[in-house]
Amino acid sequence: MQSRTPKDSRTILTDLVLPSETNPLNNLFGGELLARMDRAASIAARRHSRRIVVTASVNHVAFNKAIPLGSVVTVEAAVSRAFKSSMEIFIDIWIEDRESGQRSKANEAIYTFVAVDETGAPVNVPALEPETELEKKRFDAALRRKQLSLVLAGKMKPQDATELKALFVE
Amino acid sequence: MQSRTPKDSRTILTDLVLPSETNPLNNLFGGELLARMDRAASIAARRHSRRIVVTASVNHVAFNKAIPLGSVVTVEAAVSRAFKSSMEIFIDIWIEDRESGQRSKANEAIYTFVAVDETGAPVNVPALEPETELEKKRFDAALRRKQLSLVLAGKMKPQDATELKALFVE
Amino acid sequence: MQSRTPKDSRTILTDLVLPSETNPLNNLFGGELLARMDRAASIAARRHSRRIVVTASVNHVAFNKAIPLGSVVTVEAAVSRAFKSSMEIFIDIWIEDRESGQRSKANEAIYTFVAVDETGAPVNVPALEPETELEKKRFDAALRRKQLSLVLAGKMKPQDATELKALFVE
Amino acid sequence: MQSRTPKDSRTILTDLVLPSETNPLNNLFGGELLARMDRAASIAARRHSRRIVVTASVNHVAFNKAIPLGSVVTVEAAVSRAFKSSMEIFIDIWIEDRESGQRSKANEAIYTFVAVDETGAPVNVPALEPETELEKKRFDAALRRKQLSLVLAGKMKPQDATELKALFVE
Amino acid sequence: MQSRTPKDSRTILTDLVLPSETNPLNNLFGGELLARMDRAASIAARRHSRRIVVTASVNHVAFNKAIPLGSVVTVEAAVSRAFKSSMEIFIDIWIEDRESGQRSKANEAIYTFVAVDETGAPVNVPALEPETELEKKRFDAALRRKQLSLVLAGKMKPQDATELKALFVE
Amino acid sequence: MQSRTPKDSRTILTDLVLPSETNPLNNLFGGELLARMDRAASIAARRHSRRIVVTASVNHVAFNKAIPLGSVVTVEAAVSRAFKSSMEIFIDIWIEDRESGQRSKANEAIYTFVAVDETGAPVNVPALEPETELEKKRFDAALRRKQLSLVLAGKMKPQDATELKALFVE
Repeated sequence: MQSRTPKDSRTILTDLVLPSETNPLNNLFGGELLARMDRAASIAARRHSRRIVVTASVNHVAFNKAIPLGSVVTVEAAVSRAFKSSMEIFIDIWIEDRESGQRSKANEAIYTFVAVDETGAPVNVPALEPETELEKKRFDAALRRKQLSLVLAGKMKPQDATELKALFVE
Repeated sequence: MQSRTPKDSRTILTDLVLPSETNPLNNLFGGELLARMDRAASIAARRHSRRIVVTASVNHVAFNKAIPLGSVVTVEAAVSRAFKSSMEIFIDIWIEDRESGQRSKANEAIYTFVAVDETGAPVNVPALEPETELEKKRFDAALRRKQLSLVLAGKMKPQDATELKALFVE
Repeated sequence: MQSRTPKDSRTILTDLVLPSETNPLNNLFGGELLARMDRAASIAARRHSRRIVVTASVNHVAFNKAIPLGSVVTVEAAVSRAFKSSMEIFIDIWIEDRESGQRSKANEAIYTFVAVDETGAPVNVPALEPETELEKKRFDAALRRKQLSLVLAGKMKPQDATELKALFVE
Repeated sequence: MQSRTPKDSRTILTDLVLPSETNPLNNLFGGELLARMDRAASIAARRHSRRIVVTASVNHVAFNKAIPLGSVVTVEAAVSRAFKSSMEIFIDIWIEDRESGQRSKANEAIYTFVAVDETGAPVNVPALEPETELEKKRFDAALRRKQLSLVLAGKMKPQDATELKALFVE
Repeated sequence: MQSRTPKDSRTILTDLVLPSETNPLNNLFGGELLARMDRAASIAARRHSRRIVVTASVNHVAFNKAIPLGSVVTVEAAVSRAFKSSMEIFIDIWIEDRESGQRSKANEAIYTFVAVDETGAPVNVPALEPETELEKKRFDAALRRKQLSLVLAGKMKPQDATELKALFVE
Repeated sequence: MQSRTPKDSRTILTDLVLPSETNPLNNLFGGELLARMDRAASIAARRHSRRIVVTASVNHVAFNKAIPLGSVVTVEAAVSRAFKSSMEIFIDIWIEDRESGQRSKANEAIYTFVAVDETGAPVNVPALEPETELEKKRFDAALRRKQLSLVLAGKMKPQDATELKALFVE
């Protein structure tokens, strides 16, 4: 299988915040943003693997910035690292000010998808070749995040998570 | 402020998986489950704090088990630890087999909410007093998760995350 | 078939009132509440019968109390009496005040569901054994309601509706 | 206030059954039909009263006939009797066969709405003058139904429900 | 195949403007109105052809009049001319003032649908016989619109569009 | 006001076709595609004008290609010409084949938006400067389309539509 670049899977979903998607403070519901990110990430995973894909996990997501009703929100997703049958998808969320046109970062999130066949069994996916500096940085960090997932799921002993351990012990 | 127990905030949202909420394998979309959990967790946080609450973050969520169209899904959320103005909400997802009536665990997830006033400024919340063994275990682990959040957000040095570090270095 | 109790089918659906579900007075639309009750009642009927179930009828429902935008609404449904293939489901609607945490009754409703096989043909369901005082009271009243349904549908002569007639003639 | 006829408030809502509105047998969900009827009935009540209207109650509704995915469903609602501030709305549900063009009755339902001012307080509504035979028959039956509602709500003694009692005792 | 009249296919969809369907000025979104018109027009096309129908094109639609939240909107669609397998549907949009009961025209639109079999292949449809003056006027104009469509799609030379050309050259 | 280029307003909305958005042939409903295009076009108009914008009209839209359930659909919108307070938005619709990754054109559409202030009154917008060959071609054609709109709306005599007339009479 030929490897692909993050550019090959980059997916952009720009849409409005509609009145039905807001909380009592008139900002976008966290749950609705999670759902939009899931749809964009699933398209990125599909573009990389050309397979049916299903959500495997959502990494830590912080909602740092409220997104008010009527905002234009851009969800930008791309595969940041491919493993055997799973893919890490890095998602950037941008909002823009109507009057100045200024675009600012509202959130980041990381989802993991698995490629499957029609029966739901995992299938292999192409490797990812990061190109830009940012893509390379995200590619490297993906391994630590995978170890963290395995540790948190009790599938890897903390002492064996070499990459991760380095964070805490040097 | 009087402390509260997990029972005081326990929230149960049992609902069907409708055709509009399924992916190409006819299972519940990850994004839709994330949105349901967000709504249930926000109610639990509100019951604990009696304040307006907003999603602050979603911890690692693993989608271990597909949830097919027509399933009955129970989202059960309760506050697992309260900090100054933030609350960790632990969510258990159950599905049940129609014919046997057997109920099985499909997922776990952890969300963090912050209590705010009408201007969106954080306000203090009551302490949480865990009662059962499981509640105590989740209460203790919440501190490690908070440190992990701070480390991942670059707001705490890994070396200072005493509770967390213990996982990797003993 | 082993009989079941109301507890076996009790279904709780706690959810928010979202902006898209409100009328011009900013209260929950009657139609949306009817739909939520139908979903919760169908799950209760399914838990009792372990079969596919379809709505057969809705009894008189009074909307006594407006439910404002942002409310937490709890729909609590349980089988109140089982007949041959039909089940009466009693539904209690609760809302709670955010600041006091006080929970109050907003509505009651009664739906009837029929258990069917894959072709849509009615199948038998287990008997119901009420346990608490309230459950016994609802169980007894269910017979009168069934007679009323039959009379209103022209399937029973008013004079033969013994239980019901007693209400009007002693 | 000038009286109005059923024709003045007649409301027709013809729409498709979409995939997102179906149950496991691929028929329209009872809950979705209840919601559509509520919207059509509220328009009829508004056309009669020219006021804000809110759902007061739903009478007994029987779902006699399944309505399959892709059906064309016509909800036809008109005021059948006006009281002081409340209006009874009679609703006929029709479906039509695509190939023969044949239209058949699928359901009937009766809703009650109350006209209110901006503060939610009840206001008077015009009288209704039935014109056709069917309209007159429904007009007369509305009084019996109102008595039945009052009896079921414990607001009228069965013995005082003259019109209703006649059904059971002659 | 027996010809039909516009009356045979006339479809009325009266519904409310709900909060989830409004733009920042609190008026109905253009996109939502386009979707409602598409559903009503597809029913009209189906009533005329008694076949599966799919949207082929939307003619020029002008949004002359804002439709505020809470409005009652009536979409009235009828076949205005039938060609071999396609049908032109003329749609009138009416809104009404709650207090005066006055009904006014908000928009007009023209959609074209094609009748197809289960494989998606076009099938013939009955001819249309206009009856009223307005129906005859719309029937005649439909031919000019069809030529315009063909010219815009590059499938007919402007010089051959006799009916259309007449508009510009006399 | 400084002029802008099509690139400044280019808006990409890539999303899935969900089960709730399909017709009886399991393809995307025309009405749903019209609504998505309206949202993307409104963002493009807003990016160009930095104002509140409302849909003014939809030009002829042809649905040449069915878009099946599960497809990835990309709606790409950009301002193609700016007039005094109105903007023409050109929209390209792309779908992609999951297995080959091949992207193909499914539709084109043209919407017109007007920039307004908080009271709904039209306000001036910046001029558009096309850059690429395609952008220039669309810019030129926009004038003919505007004349056609005015002619169809009876606001310009066909004989005065110089640009348009040229099409039919040389």
